[in-house]
Amino acid sequence: MSIAQTPEPPYTAVIFTSFRTGGDNGYRVMSQRMVDLASQQPGFLGVESAREGLGITVSYWVDDASAAAWKQVTEHVIAQERGRAVWYEDYQVRVATVSRSYGPSGAR
Amino acid sequence: MSIAQTPEPPYTAVIFTSFRTGGDNGYRVMSQRMVDLASQQPGFLGVESAREGLGITVSYWVDDASAAAWKQVTEHVIAQERGRAVWYEDYQVRVATVSRSYGPSGAR
Repeated sequence: MSIAQTPEPPYTAVIFTSFRTGGDNGYRVMSQRMVDLASQQPGFLGVESAREGLGITVSYWVDDASAAAWKQVTEHVIAQERGRAVWYEDYQVRVATVSRSYGPSGAR
Repeated sequence: MSIAQTPEPPYTAVIFTSFRTGGDNGYRVMSQRMVDLASQQPGFLGVESAREGLGITVSYWVDDASAAAWKQVTEHVIAQERGRAVWYEDYQVRVATVSRSYGPSGAR
């Protein structure tokens, strides 16, 4: 996992914060599949993820429409349902528009 | 660390993604001090953080002005300088406006 190579803002960030339930229950395979599938979607810019008890995954999209379209992809819909039922103790999704970005590599 | 109890959007999210250098060099103490200090600032709503190689910290603010004011707090300015010089191999800061939020607990 590396820092996402996003373009100059504006673009859309989807911040997914979660706590897992115990056990894997197919989570690891699904998780990698969702990253692979997301990265094939129109408008996908990148993804960053870390878990330390609390998990935070931020996916970046060209615009709100492409983020919303990804939410509706059938295989992702099924994963979301299983996430609510089995994998996540608690979660929150926040959709945001990035207006500024700065760091030693500039405005990625 | 728990999922931040933010209000109904809109509000501001500051997404800080980073890779650390080796060694502590005072990082752990500063890191906790910055969380404590941030939480005392006007407009602070909450913070979420996880590190797994890549570190992601998202702080939430009432508006862009309160997030910008926190960036200018003297002790935080000093920490940012030390971060650039010593603690971080690479980092990116993205300032975003949250427009939608959903999860099992509603629109936090």
